[in-house]
Amino acid sequence: MDIKIGVSNRHVHLSLEDLECLFGPGYQLTEKRALLQPGQYACEECVSIKTDAGQMDRVRIIGPVRPYTQVEISKTDAIKLRLDPPVRDSGDLKGSKGIEIIGPKGSVRKEEGVIIANRHIHMTPEERTRLHLDDVYEVSVALSGPKGGILHHVMLKVTDEAALECHIDTDDANAHLAQTGDTIQIITDDHDTNI
Amino acid sequence: MDIKIGVSNRHVHLSLEDLECLFGPGYQLTEKRALLQPGQYACEECVSIKTDAGQMDRVRIIGPVRPYTQVEISKTDAIKLRLDPPVRDSGDLKGSKGIEIIGPKGSVRKEEGVIIANRHIHMTPEERTRLHLDDVYEVSVALSGPKGGILHHVMLKVTDEAALECHIDTDDANAHLAQTGDTIQIITDDHDTNI
Repeated sequence: MDIKIGVSNRHVHLSLEDLECLFGPGYQLTEKRALLQPGQYACEECVSIKTDAGQMDRVRIIGPVRPYTQVEISKTDAIKLRLDPPVRDSGDLKGSKGIEIIGPKGSVRKEEGVIIANRHIHMTPEERTRLHLDDVYEVSVALSGPKGGILHHVMLKVTDEAALECHIDTDDANAHLAQTGDTIQIITDDHDTNI
Repeated sequence: MDIKIGVSNRHVHLSLEDLECLFGPGYQLTEKRALLQPGQYACEECVSIKTDAGQMDRVRIIGPVRPYTQVEISKTDAIKLRLDPPVRDSGDLKGSKGIEIIGPKGSVRKEEGVIIANRHIHMTPEERTRLHLDDVYEVSVALSGPKGGILHHVMLKVTDEAALECHIDTDDANAHLAQTGDTIQIITDDHDTNI
Protein backbone atom coordinates (compact mmCIF):
# COMPACT_ATOMS: atom_id res chain seq x y z
CA MET A 1 0.00 0.00 0.00
CA ASP A 2 1.61 3.25 -1.16
CA ILE A 3 0.82 6.39 0.80
CA LYS A 4 1.58 9.90 -0.37
CA ILE A 5 4.01 12.12 1.47
CA GLY A 6 3.29 15.66 2.52
CA VAL A 7 6.50 17.48 3.45
CA SER A 8 6.03 20.05 6.22
CA ASN A 9 8.26 23.09 6.09
CA ARG A 10 8.57 25.17 9.26
CA HIS A 11 5.21 26.74 10.13
CA VAL A 12 3.16 28.31 12.88
CA HIS A 13 -0.30 27.65 14.29
CA LEU A 14 -1.75 30.61 16.20
CA SER A 15 -4.28 30.99 18.97
CA LEU A 16 -6.89 33.71 18.42
CA GLU A 17 -5.29 35.75 21.20
CA ASP A 18 -1.83 35.59 19.62
CA LEU A 19 -3.22 36.23 16.13
CA GLU A 20 -4.74 39.49 17.40
CA CYS A 21 -1.48 40.46 19.17
CA LEU A 22 0.48 39.95 15.95
CA PHE A 23 -1.98 41.27 13.36
CA GLY A 24 -4.36 43.49 15.33
CA PRO A 25 -7.80 43.08 17.00
CA GLY A 26 -10.42 41.28 14.93
CA TYR A 27 -7.91 40.17 12.29
CA GLN A 28 -8.97 37.24 10.10
CA LEU A 29 -6.50 34.92 8.36
CA THR A 30 -6.56 34.76 4.55
CA GLU A 31 -6.49 31.34 2.89
CA LYS A 32 -3.74 31.06 0.29
CA ARG A 33 -3.96 27.33 -0.43
CA ALA A 34 -6.02 24.47 0.97
CA LEU A 35 -3.98 21.64 2.49
CA LEU A 36 -4.87 18.01 1.94
CA GLN A 37 -6.17 17.66 5.52
CA PRO A 38 -9.80 18.84 5.52
CA GLY A 39 -10.26 22.38 6.86
CA GLN A 40 -6.52 23.13 7.08
CA TYR A 41 -4.95 25.79 4.89
CA ALA A 42 -1.73 27.69 4.31
CA CYS A 43 -2.34 31.38 4.90
CA GLU A 44 -1.18 34.41 2.96
CA GLU A 45 0.16 35.69 6.29
CA CYS A 46 3.65 34.93 7.56
CA VAL A 47 5.48 35.81 10.77
CA SER A 48 9.08 35.94 11.93
CA ILE A 49 10.41 33.71 14.69
CA LYS A 50 13.33 34.85 16.77
CA THR A 51 15.71 33.63 19.45
CA ASP A 52 18.87 35.20 20.86
CA ALA A 53 20.82 33.27 18.22
CA GLY A 54 18.89 34.19 15.10
CA GLN A 55 15.70 35.02 13.29
CA MET A 56 13.73 33.33 10.52
CA ASP A 57 11.40 35.42 8.39
CA ARG A 58 8.43 34.46 6.23
CA VAL A 59 7.39 31.53 8.39
CA ARG A 60 3.98 30.50 7.06
CA ILE A 61 0.88 30.47 9.27
CA ILE A 62 -1.33 27.39 8.94
CA GLY A 63 -5.01 28.14 9.59
CA PRO A 64 -7.53 28.07 11.07
CA VAL A 65 -6.69 29.42 14.52
CA ARG A 66 -6.21 26.78 17.21
CA PRO A 67 -6.66 26.71 20.98
CA TYR A 68 -2.85 26.97 21.30
CA THR A 69 0.07 28.59 19.51
CA GLN A 70 2.60 26.13 18.16
CA VAL A 71 5.78 26.57 16.12
CA GLU A 72 6.95 23.51 14.19
CA ILE A 73 10.55 23.55 13.00
CA SER A 74 13.11 21.06 11.76
CA LYS A 75 16.31 20.12 13.57
CA THR A 76 18.19 22.09 10.88
CA ASP A 77 16.15 25.16 11.84
CA ALA A 78 16.65 24.40 15.54
CA ILE A 79 20.43 24.37 15.14
CA LYS A 80 20.35 27.79 13.46
CA LEU A 81 18.10 29.19 16.20
CA ARG A 82 20.11 27.38 18.90
CA LEU A 83 17.04 25.72 20.33
CA ASP A 84 16.67 22.10 21.36
CA PRO A 85 12.96 21.41 20.95
CA PRO A 86 11.47 18.01 21.78
CA VAL A 87 9.92 15.68 19.19
CA ARG A 88 6.21 15.91 19.94
CA ASP A 89 2.64 15.35 18.82
CA SER A 90 0.81 18.48 17.81
CA GLY A 91 -0.64 20.14 20.92
CA ASP A 92 1.67 18.36 23.38
CA LEU A 93 3.60 21.48 24.34
CA LYS A 94 4.41 21.04 28.04
CA GLY A 95 8.14 21.57 28.47
CA SER A 96 8.66 22.47 24.82
CA LYS A 97 10.86 25.44 23.92
CA GLY A 98 10.07 29.16 23.94
CA ILE A 99 10.43 31.68 21.14
CA GLU A 100 9.49 35.21 20.10
CA ILE A 101 6.96 35.52 17.27
CA ILE A 102 6.89 38.81 15.37
CA GLY A 103 3.99 40.02 13.24
CA PRO A 104 3.24 43.29 11.45
CA LYS A 105 1.33 44.79 14.40
CA GLY A 106 3.12 43.34 17.40
CA SER A 107 5.09 40.45 18.85
CA VAL A 108 4.54 37.74 21.45
CA ARG A 109 7.11 35.94 23.55
CA LYS A 110 5.99 32.34 24.07
CA GLU A 111 7.46 30.45 27.01
CA GLU A 112 6.68 27.20 25.21
CA GLY A 113 5.27 26.06 21.89
CA VAL A 114 8.29 25.15 19.75
CA ILE A 115 8.47 21.48 18.76
CA ILE A 116 9.90 19.18 16.14
CA ALA A 117 6.68 17.50 14.98
CA ASN A 118 6.76 13.74 15.09
CA ARG A 119 6.37 11.85 11.84
CA HIS A 120 2.75 10.84 11.40
CA ILE A 121 0.18 9.41 9.02
CA HIS A 122 -3.31 10.88 8.85
CA MET A 123 -6.07 8.36 8.18
CA THR A 124 -9.71 7.63 8.91
CA PRO A 125 -10.78 4.69 11.10
CA GLU A 126 -11.93 2.91 7.92
CA GLU A 127 -8.52 3.34 6.29
CA ARG A 128 -6.82 2.07 9.42
CA THR A 129 -8.91 -1.08 9.29
CA ARG A 130 -8.31 -1.51 5.56
CA LEU A 131 -4.55 -1.23 6.19
CA HIS A 132 -4.75 -3.91 8.96
CA LEU A 133 -3.48 -1.42 11.54
CA ASP A 134 -6.31 -1.59 14.08
CA ASP A 135 -4.02 -2.45 16.99
CA VAL A 136 -1.08 -0.42 15.79
CA TYR A 137 -0.21 3.10 16.95
CA GLU A 138 3.19 3.56 15.36
CA VAL A 139 4.75 2.22 12.17
CA SER A 140 7.92 2.59 10.14
CA VAL A 141 7.84 3.83 6.57
CA ALA A 142 10.18 3.01 3.69
CA LEU A 143 11.46 5.58 1.20
CA SER A 144 13.16 4.50 -2.01
CA GLY A 145 15.88 6.08 -4.13
CA PRO A 146 19.64 6.62 -3.98
CA LYS A 147 19.35 7.98 -0.44
CA GLY A 148 16.45 5.75 0.57
CA GLY A 149 15.84 4.42 4.02
CA ILE A 150 13.33 3.66 6.71
CA LEU A 151 11.84 6.16 9.15
CA HIS A 152 10.84 4.75 12.52
CA HIS A 153 8.33 6.13 15.00
CA VAL A 154 5.68 7.29 12.57
CA MET A 155 2.49 7.82 14.61
CA LEU A 156 -0.96 7.02 13.26
CA LYS A 157 -3.32 10.00 13.59
CA VAL A 158 -6.75 8.52 13.15
CA THR A 159 -9.63 10.98 12.81
CA ASP A 160 -13.03 10.84 11.12
CA GLU A 161 -12.09 13.74 8.87
CA ALA A 162 -8.69 12.86 7.43
CA ALA A 163 -6.99 12.48 4.08
CA LEU A 164 -4.57 9.56 3.90
CA GLU A 165 -1.18 11.27 3.99
CA CYS A 166 2.20 10.77 5.66
CA HIS A 167 3.64 13.98 7.11
CA ILE A 168 7.39 14.25 7.42
CA ASP A 169 9.53 17.34 7.92
CA THR A 170 12.04 18.89 5.54
CA ASP A 171 14.97 17.13 7.24
CA ASP A 172 13.41 13.71 6.70
CA ALA A 173 12.50 14.63 3.14
CA ASN A 174 15.87 16.10 2.20
CA ALA A 175 17.86 13.28 3.81
CA HIS A 176 16.03 10.86 1.53
CA LEU A 177 15.62 13.17 -1.49
CA ALA A 178 11.85 12.86 -1.08
CA GLN A 179 9.22 15.47 -1.82
CA THR A 180 5.51 16.07 -1.48
CA GLY A 181 3.61 13.63 -3.68
CA ASP A 182 6.22 10.87 -3.47
CA THR A 183 5.02 7.67 -1.87
CA ILE A 184 6.11 5.65 1.13
CA GLN A 185 5.35 2.10 2.11
CA ILE A 186 4.25 1.18 5.62
CA ILE A 187 6.38 -1.39 7.43
CA THR A 188 4.85 -2.91 10.51
CA ASP A 189 7.53 -5.54 11.16
CA ASP A 190 10.09 -2.94 12.08
CA HIS A 191 8.23 -0.82 14.53
CA ASP A 192 8.19 -3.56 17.15
CA THR A 193 11.96 -3.76 17.21
CA ASN A 194 11.93 -0.09 18.20
CA ILE A 195 15.49 0.40 16.98
CA MET B 1 29.18 -3.72 16.34
CA ASP B 2 28.76 -0.01 16.98
CA ILE B 3 30.48 2.38 14.60
CA LYS B 4 30.93 6.08 15.25
CA ILE B 5 29.32 8.68 13.04
CA GLY B 6 31.13 11.62 11.51
CA VAL B 7 28.68 14.23 10.25
CA SER B 8 29.91 16.08 7.15
CA ASN B 9 28.78 19.67 6.78
CA ARG B 10 29.08 21.26 3.34
CA HIS B 11 32.75 21.52 2.35
CA VAL B 12 35.14 21.91 -0.55
CA HIS B 13 38.17 19.97 -1.78
CA LEU B 14 40.45 21.98 -4.05
CA SER B 15 42.92 21.11 -6.78
CA LEU B 16 46.28 22.89 -6.56
CA GLU B 17 45.37 24.93 -9.62
CA ASP B 18 42.07 26.12 -8.14
CA LEU B 19 43.68 26.78 -4.74
CA GLU B 20 46.14 29.14 -6.42
CA CYS B 21 43.35 30.85 -8.38
CA LEU B 22 41.40 31.46 -5.17
CA PHE B 23 44.21 32.28 -2.74
CA GLY B 24 47.15 33.29 -4.94
CA PRO B 25 50.21 31.55 -6.42
CA GLY B 26 52.16 29.30 -4.06
CA TYR B 27 49.49 29.46 -1.35
CA GLN B 28 49.59 26.70 1.26
CA LEU B 29 46.53 25.57 3.24
CA THR B 30 46.63 25.95 7.02
CA GLU B 31 45.48 23.02 9.14
CA LYS B 32 42.85 24.02 11.68
CA ARG B 33 41.88 20.59 12.94
CA ALA B 34 42.84 17.02 12.02
CA LEU B 35 39.96 14.82 10.87
CA LEU B 36 39.63 11.22 11.94
CA GLN B 37 40.66 9.94 8.51
CA PRO B 38 44.48 9.86 8.40
CA GLY B 39 46.04 12.85 6.60
CA GLN B 40 42.75 14.73 6.18
CA TYR B 41 42.19 18.05 7.93
CA ALA B 42 39.78 20.95 8.15
CA CYS B 43 41.54 24.13 7.03
CA GLU B 44 41.49 27.62 8.50
CA GLU B 45 40.54 28.76 5.00
CA CYS B 46 36.98 29.02 3.76
CA VAL B 47 35.46 29.98 0.41
CA SER B 48 32.07 31.10 -0.84
CA ILE B 49 30.02 29.05 -3.29
CA LYS B 50 27.57 30.78 -5.58
CA THR B 51 24.87 30.04 -8.12
CA ASP B 52 22.37 32.34 -9.82
CA ALA B 53 19.97 31.53 -6.97
CA GLY B 54 22.16 32.22 -3.97
CA GLN B 55 25.49 32.20 -2.23
CA MET B 56 26.85 30.38 0.81
CA ASP B 57 29.80 31.88 2.66
CA ARG B 58 32.32 30.35 5.01
CA VAL B 59 32.31 26.95 3.34
CA ARG B 60 35.23 25.08 4.88
CA ILE B 61 38.08 23.71 2.77
CA ILE B 62 39.19 20.16 3.61
CA GLY B 63 42.89 19.56 2.97
CA PRO B 64 45.22 18.46 1.56
CA VAL B 65 44.79 19.50 -2.09
CA ARG B 66 43.40 16.79 -4.37
CA PRO B 67 43.69 16.04 -8.09
CA TYR B 68 40.18 17.49 -8.55
CA THR B 69 38.01 20.22 -7.08
CA GLN B 70 34.83 18.94 -5.47
CA VAL B 71 32.01 20.67 -3.58
CA GLU B 72 29.96 18.47 -1.25
CA ILE B 73 26.61 19.87 -0.18
CA SER B 74 23.40 18.56 1.35
CA LYS B 75 20.03 18.47 -0.38
CA THR B 76 18.98 21.29 1.95
CA ASP B 77 21.88 23.37 0.60
CA ALA B 78 21.06 22.29 -2.95
CA ILE B 79 17.48 23.55 -2.65
CA LYS B 80 18.73 26.95 -1.47
CA LEU B 81 21.23 27.13 -4.33
CA ARG B 82 18.67 25.71 -6.79
CA LEU B 83 21.00 22.94 -7.88
CA ASP B 84 20.14 19.29 -8.34
CA PRO B 85 23.44 17.49 -7.77
CA PRO B 86 23.70 13.73 -8.07
CA VAL B 87 24.48 11.41 -5.15
CA ARG B 88 28.04 10.31 -5.81
CA ASP B 89 31.25 8.79 -4.55
CA SER B 90 34.05 11.25 -3.96
CA GLY B 91 35.89 11.89 -7.24
CA ASP B 92 33.06 10.62 -9.47
CA LEU B 93 32.23 14.02 -10.92
CA LYS B 94 31.23 13.34 -14.53
CA GLY B 95 27.87 15.00 -15.12
CA SER B 96 27.76 16.55 -11.66
CA LYS B 97 26.66 20.17 -11.25
CA GLY B 98 28.63 23.36 -11.77
CA ILE B 99 29.18 26.26 -9.38
CA GLU B 100 31.24 29.37 -8.83
CA ILE B 101 33.80 29.25 -6.01
CA ILE B 102 34.99 32.56 -4.60
CA GLY B 103 38.17 33.06 -2.59
CA PRO B 104 40.00 36.13 -1.27
CA LYS B 105 42.22 36.50 -4.36
CA GLY B 106 39.99 35.27 -7.17
CA SER B 107 37.16 33.02 -8.24
CA VAL B 108 36.72 29.95 -10.40
CA ARG B 109 33.65 28.79 -12.29
CA LYS B 110 33.53 24.99 -12.26
CA GLU B 111 31.44 23.28 -14.93
CA GLU B 112 31.16 20.24 -12.68
CA GLY B 113 32.19 19.20 -9.18
CA VAL B 114 29.09 19.64 -7.01
CA ILE B 115 27.75 16.41 -5.52
CA ILE B 116 25.71 15.11 -2.63
CA ALA B 117 28.23 12.66 -1.16
CA ASN B 118 26.94 9.16 -0.74
CA ARG B 119 26.76 7.74 2.74
CA HIS B 120 29.86 5.65 3.42
CA ILE B 121 31.88 3.83 6.05
CA HIS B 122 35.67 4.07 6.10
CA MET B 123 37.45 0.92 7.20
CA THR B 124 40.64 -1.08 6.68
CA PRO B 125 40.64 -4.50 4.96
CA GLU B 126 41.20 -6.07 8.39
CA GLU B 127 38.16 -4.32 9.84
CA ARG B 128 36.06 -5.39 6.88
CA THR B 129 37.00 -9.00 7.54
CA ARG B 130 36.40 -8.67 11.27
CA LEU B 131 32.92 -7.27 10.50
CA HIS B 132 32.16 -10.23 8.15
CA LEU B 133 31.71 -7.85 5.22
CA ASP B 134 34.28 -9.33 2.80
CA ASP B 135 31.77 -9.80 -0.01
CA VAL B 136 29.69 -6.75 0.80
CA TYR B 137 30.00 -3.34 -0.88
CA GLU B 138 26.97 -1.57 0.53
CA VAL B 139 25.14 -1.86 3.85
CA SER B 140 22.32 -0.18 5.71
CA VAL B 141 22.87 1.47 9.08
CA ALA B 142 20.46 1.89 11.98
CA LEU B 143 20.16 5.06 14.05
CA SER B 144 18.28 5.06 17.34
CA GLY B 145 16.29 7.73 19.16
CA PRO B 146 12.90 9.44 18.85
CA LYS B 147 13.54 10.10 15.14
CA GLY B 148 15.53 6.94 14.56
CA GLY B 149 15.56 4.99 11.34
CA ILE B 150 17.63 3.08 8.84
CA LEU B 151 19.80 4.58 6.10
CA HIS B 152 20.20 2.46 2.99
CA HIS B 153 22.96 2.56 0.37
CA VAL B 154 25.90 3.13 2.70
CA MET B 155 29.03 2.29 0.69
CA LEU B 156 32.08 0.61 2.23
CA LYS B 157 35.28 2.57 1.55
CA VAL B 158 38.05 0.12 2.27
CA THR B 159 41.58 1.52 2.33
CA ASP B 160 44.77 0.54 4.13
CA GLU B 161 44.90 3.87 5.91
CA ALA B 162 41.44 4.35 7.36
CA ALA B 163 39.77 5.04 10.69
CA LEU B 164 36.53 3.13 11.21
CA GLU B 165 33.89 5.82 10.83
CA CYS B 166 30.50 6.24 9.13
CA HIS B 167 30.16 9.50 7.21
CA ILE B 168 26.69 10.93 6.76
CA ASP B 169 25.66 14.45 5.77
CA THR B 170 23.86 17.06 7.85
CA ASP B 171 20.48 16.13 6.34
CA ASP B 172 20.83 12.51 7.39
CA ALA B 173 22.09 13.57 10.81
CA ASN B 174 19.41 16.18 11.45
CA ALA B 175 16.58 13.96 10.20
CA HIS B 176 17.56 11.44 12.86
CA LEU B 177 18.77 13.88 15.54
CA ALA B 178 22.22 12.31 15.27
CA GLN B 179 25.57 14.00 15.70
CA THR B 180 29.28 13.29 15.35
CA GLY B 181 30.32 10.69 17.92
CA ASP B 182 26.94 8.95 18.06
CA THR B 183 26.99 5.35 16.96
CA ILE B 184 25.22 3.39 14.26
CA GLN B 185 24.76 -0.32 13.81
CA ILE B 186 25.41 -2.05 10.50
CA ILE B 187 22.51 -4.01 9.03
CA THR B 188 23.39 -6.38 6.22
CA ASP B 189 19.97 -8.04 5.93
CA ASP B 190 18.36 -4.92 4.64
CA HIS B 191 20.73 -3.86 1.91
CA ASP B 192 19.80 -6.83 -0.25
CA THR B 193 16.18 -5.81 -0.32
CA ASN B 194 17.39 -2.56 -1.87
CA ILE B 195 14.22 -0.79 -0.85
